[in-house]
Amino acid sequence: MNPSTKYDPAYLRDFVTRFFERLGCPRHDAEAIADVFIRAELRNLPSHGMIRIKDHFQLWEAGRLNIKPDIRIVHESPGTAVVDGDNAVGMLAAYRSMEIAIEKSEKAGSGWVATRNSNHFSIGSYYAMMALEHDMIGLAMTNGNPLVAPVNSTERMLGTNPIAVAVPAGKQPPFVGDFSTTPIARGKLGVAAKKGKKIPFGYVIDKNGNPSDDPDILKEGGAMVPLGGDIPHGSHKGYALGSIVDILTGVLSGANFGPFVPPNLAYLPIPEVQVGKGMGHFFGAWRIDAFMEAGEFKSRMDRWINVFRKSRPAPGKKVLIPGDIEREAEIRLAKEGISVLPAIQKDVKEVADKLGIEFRVLDS
Amino acid sequence: MNPSTKYDPAYLRDFVTRFFERLGCPRHDAEAIADVFIRAELRNLPSHGMIRIKDHFQLWEAGRLNIKPDIRIVHESPGTAVVDGDNAVGMLAAYRSMEIAIEKSEKAGSGWVATRNSNHFSIGSYYAMMALEHDMIGLAMTNGNPLVAPVNSTERMLGTNPIAVAVPAGKQPPFVGDFSTTPIARGKLGVAAKKGKKIPFGYVIDKNGNPSDDPDILKEGGAMVPLGGDIPHGSHKGYALGSIVDILTGVLSGANFGPFVPPNLAYLPIPEVQVGKGMGHFFGAWRIDAFMEAGEFKSRMDRWINVFRKSRPAPGKKVLIPGDIEREAEIRLAKEGISVLPAIQKDVKEVADKLGIEFRVLDS
Repeated sequence: MNPSTKYDPAYLRDFVTRFFERLGCPRHDAEAIADVFIRAELRNLPSHGMIRIKDHFQLWEAGRLNIKPDIRIVHESPGTAVVDGDNAVGMLAAYRSMEIAIEKSEKAGSGWVATRNSNHFSIGSYYAMMALEHDMIGLAMTNGNPLVAPVNSTERMLGTNPIAVAVPAGKQPPFVGDFSTTPIARGKLGVAAKKGKKIPFGYVIDKNGNPSDDPDILKEGGAMVPLGGDIPHGSHKGYALGSIVDILTGVLSGANFGPFVPPNLAYLPIPEVQVGKGMGHFFGAWRIDAFMEAGEFKSRMDRWINVFRKSRPAPGKKVLIPGDIEREAEIRLAKEGISVLPAIQKDVKEVADKLGIEFRVLDS
Repeated sequence: MNPSTKYDPAYLRDFVTRFFERLGCPRHDAEAIADVFIRAELRNLPSHGMIRIKDHFQLWEAGRLNIKPDIRIVHESPGTAVVDGDNAVGMLAAYRSMEIAIEKSEKAGSGWVATRNSNHFSIGSYYAMMALEHDMIGLAMTNGNPLVAPVNSTERMLGTNPIAVAVPAGKQPPFVGDFSTTPIARGKLGVAAKKGKKIPFGYVIDKNGNPSDDPDILKEGGAMVPLGGDIPHGSHKGYALGSIVDILTGVLSGANFGPFVPPNLAYLPIPEVQVGKGMGHFFGAWRIDAFMEAGEFKSRMDRWINVFRKSRPAPGKKVLIPGDIEREAEIRLAKEGISVLPAIQKDVKEVADKLGIEFRVLDS
């Protein structure tokens, strides 16, 4: 690790904990939130890491986050629950909800929690992976700020609505799929726009529904498209998939859905019409031995992973298992340290100064 | 209906019932299978209808179908089960498995069945929609004959692995998504090949992993690609999604998975290596009132459907809800009758003649 250009993960973890404590969170809550932030950075998903400190500060300043929430079950059956997140920081509501899904699964064979009145939960894989140590298959989904137009529509109706699934294996590392139901994540548009670059066709449409290569088109009435890109390539399938996520996370939980989902950015207003409470998530855990002895399943999963990893590669390519890239990043960045873009360091420093806490800016 | 060019659905239903009875199925089983065949035709998914009569006949002739199966639960918990289909006609194993998922859901809040030792189950939406009358959200998945290469691979490792989800509404018709995890269904390649047409890029790759527009490329070592089409457009997401279907249907059930899934065509051999029993499915049912009073959910779902249906259309386009097209086809074809391609009529007639049962060929 080069401490003049990279952060020790422990330093950032401590900073994020102090930041949320300073906002008023109990230490235990602040640590839980910080763990998700640092995991996102370590898994090399910086769009869900330190860049969100400023967003959380501004939401807190605007009175749009409840720092002392009463996260509680409001409806339940042996294998299911609805959790009201009480407008908590999303990571807290999500963590508690996934814990409940796992507890339910111990008894019923599977456990399902629909969560309302929550906020941005960072990376879904964090919660899905909580199931692994319990020999369960974990699932996490969330809806989000509407950006995506249904097929044949030009109106932003769906979030990028990611799905994360984690499956335990034996000798092999686990399978961890975590993907938005769009061709790309929103963040990639911003990066291209800042660089003044065009984007490939198949990511966005203009206000008339025509394909566009302009990364700024959302500012001019455009929209992102569902996974598949266009109808000949199956965007109606991505639309159905993103809709299923919205229904499970938003409709079934009593949260907002579709165009009513409140944005987790303080400079964007909450929609005037609300059809539920806050943002919605959905969590699940299937207990492996409710289907098959866990050891046998893990051997089968080892074989699945081996067979797929060894499938014939295209010339010069390497076949990967979902989760490989993030797991390798986690090992590497834990050693090498975490880079934070200078602009993000500056934002975090400004926030830290306002709150009267220390944040060290590195050489760039 | 013009009885000289179109079949009365009741006639085809009666024929399919007689056909399976003639193979040796009890009448009750034959009727259950026929209901799925006719539903596929009525929903205008003929690739899953009468064209499969000849396939089933040939599998039966080859001794690859068990006509008097003992479909049974081999492992269970309050909310889960593994079902051994005993090599039954897939529709029977699937129907019974979904019944069990619904029964489990009544008690546990959700019910999940992983099914092994089964065969091609036709349309997943048939089983997912069984949940609707119980005020449940239904889910059905299956693995299948390997056709799809993982990202960066050129080897056919995954089936088109469809996912079907049905969600009840109140005044609105239900939401029914049913889609393969590939840009297109396999059948479309065959249609293009027969017409001598090229296909759009983004459906298949050649044996070296290069994009191809040749619908016959699978015969020359090519493969289909996952939903997304290529990496820039998110094919790693389609690969993860198709893999999740394979893991739930194949690994968790004790069926075959990935490249080991036996083809449901008698002229294709069963792979030498088998890692489980037959083909695998996965079924689920979430009981709505395990989360929220069913009437309230249905009102919310009505609103979801209305808001999405009325989202701003692209010029000259109409915004649809998943399931609209198939539901409208079902109403229309029930009145107008069902067209069956002359070549398929001929195949069915040949099979009927061999079995000594009547099948009426229409004018073409």
